Amino acid sequence: MGYTAPLEDYAFLLHRVMQVQSLGIPGYAELDEGFTAAVLEAAGKIAADVLAPLNTVGDREGCVLENGVVRTPEGFKAAFEQLRAGGWMALDCAAEYGGQGLPYLMHTAVNEAFVSANMALNMYQGLTHGAYSALRAHGTAEQKAYYLPKLASCEWTGTMNLTEPQCGTDLGLIRTRAEAEGEAWRITGTKIFISAGDHDMAENIVHLVLAKAPGGGEGTRGISLFVVPKVLADGTRNAVSVGKLEAKMGIHGSATCVMNYDGAQGWLVGDLHKGMRAMFTMMNEARLGVGCQGYAVAEAAYQAATAYAKDRLQGRMAEGAGPAQPLIVHPDIRRSLMDQKAFIEGARALTFWGASLIDRGHHGDAAAEGLASLLIPVIKGFLTDKGFESTVQAQQIWGGHGYIEDNPASQFVRDARIAMIYEGANGVQALDLVGRKLASDGGKAIRAFLQMILAECQALEGDAAMEPVAKPLKRAAGQLQEALVYFMSVAGQSPQDALAGSTDFLHLMGHVSLGLMWLRMAKAAQGAENIPFLQAKLVTARHFMTRQLPTCALHLARIMAGGETVMALPAEAF
Amino acid sequence: MGYTAPLEDYAFLLHRVMQVQSLGIPGYAELDEGFTAAVLEAAGKIAADVLAPLNTVGDREGCVLENGVVRTPEGFKAAFEQLRAGGWMALDCAAEYGGQGLPYLMHTAVNEAFVSANMALNMYQGLTHGAYSALRAHGTAEQKAYYLPKLASCEWTGTMNLTEPQCGTDLGLIRTRAEAEGEAWRITGTKIFISAGDHDMAENIVHLVLAKAPGGGEGTRGISLFVVPKVLADGTRNAVSVGKLEAKMGIHGSATCVMNYDGAQGWLVGDLHKGMRAMFTMMNEARLGVGCQGYAVAEAAYQAATAYAKDRLQGRMAEGAGPAQPLIVHPDIRRSLMDQKAFIEGARALTFWGASLIDRGHHGDAAAEGLASLLIPVIKGFLTDKGFESTVQAQQIWGGHGYIEDNPASQFVRDARIAMIYEGANGVQALDLVGRKLASDGGKAIRAFLQMILAECQALEGDAAMEPVAKPLKRAAGQLQEALVYFMSVAGQSPQDALAGSTDFLHLMGHVSLGLMWLRMAKAAQGAENIPFLQAKLVTARHFMTRQLPTCALHLARIMAGGETVMALPAEAF
Repeated sequence: MGYTAPLEDYAFLLHRVMQVQSLGIPGYAELDEGFTAAVLEAAGKIAADVLAPLNTVGDREGCVLENGVVRTPEGFKAAFEQLRAGGWMALDCAAEYGGQGLPYLMHTAVNEAFVSANMALNMYQGLTHGAYSALRAHGTAEQKAYYLPKLASCEWTGTMNLTEPQCGTDLGLIRTRAEAEGEAWRITGTKIFISAGDHDMAENIVHLVLAKAPGGGEGTRGISLFVVPKVLADGTRNAVSVGKLEAKMGIHGSATCVMNYDGAQGWLVGDLHKGMRAMFTMMNEARLGVGCQGYAVAEAAYQAATAYAKDRLQGRMAEGAGPAQPLIVHPDIRRSLMDQKAFIEGARALTFWGASLIDRGHHGDAAAEGLASLLIPVIKGFLTDKGFESTVQAQQIWGGHGYIEDNPASQFVRDARIAMIYEGANGVQALDLVGRKLASDGGKAIRAFLQMILAECQALEGDAAMEPVAKPLKRAAGQLQEALVYFMSVAGQSPQDALAGSTDFLHLMGHVSLGLMWLRMAKAAQGAENIPFLQAKLVTARHFMTRQLPTCALHLARIMAGGETVMALPAEAF
Repeated sequence: MGYTAPLEDYAFLLHRVMQVQSLGIPGYAELDEGFTAAVLEAAGKIAADVLAPLNTVGDREGCVLENGVVRTPEGFKAAFEQLRAGGWMALDCAAEYGGQGLPYLMHTAVNEAFVSANMALNMYQGLTHGAYSALRAHGTAEQKAYYLPKLASCEWTGTMNLTEPQCGTDLGLIRTRAEAEGEAWRITGTKIFISAGDHDMAENIVHLVLAKAPGGGEGTRGISLFVVPKVLADGTRNAVSVGKLEAKMGIHGSATCVMNYDGAQGWLVGDLHKGMRAMFTMMNEARLGVGCQGYAVAEAAYQAATAYAKDRLQGRMAEGAGPAQPLIVHPDIRRSLMDQKAFIEGARALTFWGASLIDRGHHGDAAAEGLASLLIPVIKGFLTDKGFESTVQAQQIWGGHGYIEDNPASQFVRDARIAMIYEGANGVQALDLVGRKLASDGGKAIRAFLQMILAECQALEGDAAMEPVAKPLKRAAGQLQEALVYFMSVAGQSPQDALAGSTDFLHLMGHVSLGLMWLRMAKAAQGAENIPFLQAKLVTARHFMTRQLPTCALHLARIMAGGETVMALPAEAF
């Protein structure tokens, strides 16, 4: 089942919808159509030819732990080497560390194609990217010089060590300890769920580890960040080892390890006892990357399901159409495909927009950074919840064949599932949104977001062609506003009433966000109805508005119901 | 992770809500509280002690094909023998064939517990039950005498052979051929997705096979039903063999086989060329059984997630509550558990009610049979869609631990997924509902259903305590009515407008059906607010009404949008 990168949609978004060259963001002026097309076409080719064929292999073989070393599935090492050789890892890394210095937006588009083709294999690179960002932002000059060139190229790969057996979300509970020893530290403890914790595709693995150093106080205040390489500068092995390789529901090609630190040598990254802050700085990009996984796997599942729906002959909608017609003639199949399409294309637009806001933020635009921070839990939580649903819908099109591991549908569902969980489970994203981001900076970002939507809708008033898109969006923005007013009214006296609606609020805002994207896409597609691609955008925009955006009213109704029935029962009643 | 059968809920439904002894259904008068409690407690004990401990084993080991014979996971054979010895297989089979002659309702309650404990193992019995019903309804006296006692006891097991590589739903396309040879027939062809197609737990396997005999014409008209035993009466092996054992996403303990019939000896069941009719007679029970799987696996997943949420310490809702509190104190976790609880208990009530309608139908009540036929696609489609969602919600509570196969959450999700697919994929259920059941017998059943709801709501008018339950249900029934009127208005000229809304209609009717169940449960729980179990029912009823029933408005909005955006694009646009 081949994968084809959605190059036409990339070009439409970058140049027709976002008009990236005109945005005034440093580095964007150079993104002319010829250049972005060349980069993305090349990325699409590697995704299709090198990564996609290994996706099933990775799922079936999985990783294996042998004599303390993780072996990746057949072919992964060679493919990783090809990505490295092509410079794909360092696309948005700084030129001084061997990167190509492109905007984060371009990295995001390339990343989507790589994830669609092979989510598990791409994780080794994604985590390395995270380690690069953390060290670049917080490392000493010496650390940067030593690690960054190796991480930019993926000659070495990186990991993030947060979770422990007794603590996931609640990092205040961590027990891993750091004891000073001269310039360095000795790290002791057990970390779990460490993606790319060990593997056979790089000479060295650079672990970033949260640990408690003496004197930092209780809870998250006492936490510091350390860099702990698998192989030390003198070529000897550090005291870090794989305790276990986890058997998982999906992403079998990604090695998820229990890591044991037995007095391993580490070096402080950033300020002592300020480890949480260091982790937070790279959180926006990491979470946007996971949101991207949500719709990227959905895209791959959609492509496979579409091919099957066109090929599989079953039932008839028209008499005299022969013994059977392709599945795609059936309205319920078509509804499912349209729902997937409307979600995926909207999600791509939102993620690209989010990436452009992060690019603006990198260049000191505080308002853009505030808006990005507001949108990140939505991009992470909403796009992975809906992305998973979308893979399930795609699997359903296959009928019984979708449940059999001979076909790709099951793997997409199993792989997509993790994106709802890691990098902050989606309930935590909702809590972050409602409990922190809405009120942050006096609610500036959410107000700006609502005003932006209303302004874009108002600018289209009187435009009859755009009314079926603008009008429902305006109504939905009003529902979002109503939910906000409710939250403000209960915030002081009964926060549980707001928190009981946090997941609904995340989904309400997710729908409104995709609505804004569909407004922008429909506007960009106007006046070119004779081009099939743009015609499809107009239809899909209306499909979203009539069949998905009305979900806002449901979420509002649930939010307004508050927490009474949610919290009424004692724990024993469950 | 232990499973506990919900005995208190069984008793509440049977005796307080349904008041089974007063229903006037043959066999129900004997179902006094002591008797049903004894049966269900014993079933719950076997489920907990024998079946549940094998659930993980079955998932990890799966079935293995060795030298043409399927070997089931370690322990399955002994457990199956225990079920057989206890007479559990034949609970509702006729006494003349060695059964206990209990109502189908009792079989359904027992079946739920067995499925919750071990869905895969229970499938061998479920399919045998289907074969028993088909032969009992359509077999000759000789066939009945020969097969039924063996099938009732599960000394022999049964299978249903419908699907072929080129046809699933569209049985008109089948190619398996039957050629007459004296009194018998020779069956030749390949059948796929045959659950329990082979295994090591019974002496003989009785295959029921759809095939085309000469002279029957095109499409489904030419299909006949044959019984093809694995071992013939003289002890020799029939020409039927396992072509392949499928690797599946879940239910690994259930052997899904490709079956090759190479001139196998078979005998006609029922009339020649009337095979489809013979299959249809057992479809209601088979589909209700799958609907039961939907919520039964959700129940098991809910129990495991609840135990984890009470045990796992993470985060705090109250200051001074120590370093961390159990997950269950968090509103978003509690919301998820309440949503699962409201679905599962409503689904159980609906399934039990459906089983009682089937019992009535068995005794010649045509109105009950019509209502059962109307509800069956809802019970199958809605309860498995929502049941799967419920297992995903349960898995989410585990955080990263839910994605690791050390814990049960992933298996529940993977197992539950198949119920949306087999026995008629849920899109086919929606088509059956909208395209056939609504209009059947002049729309008598759906009108009776709506009148029943309105009458039950009206009877509670002026009852202030019941108003928060009755009022939303009445509104939702009005929305169902509105969708019906819309379907009638488009039925003639543009059936695609109705079919584009078929899945939404199934879900709209599913919500209304559960709403009716919650009305009945709330009514039955009235006036006993000091009993915690009944108090919880009243809270959960309101939770359902305020947070789940409002989904009806969303489904109605989608239905009223018709098929325009769904069908507008050419196939190439996908």
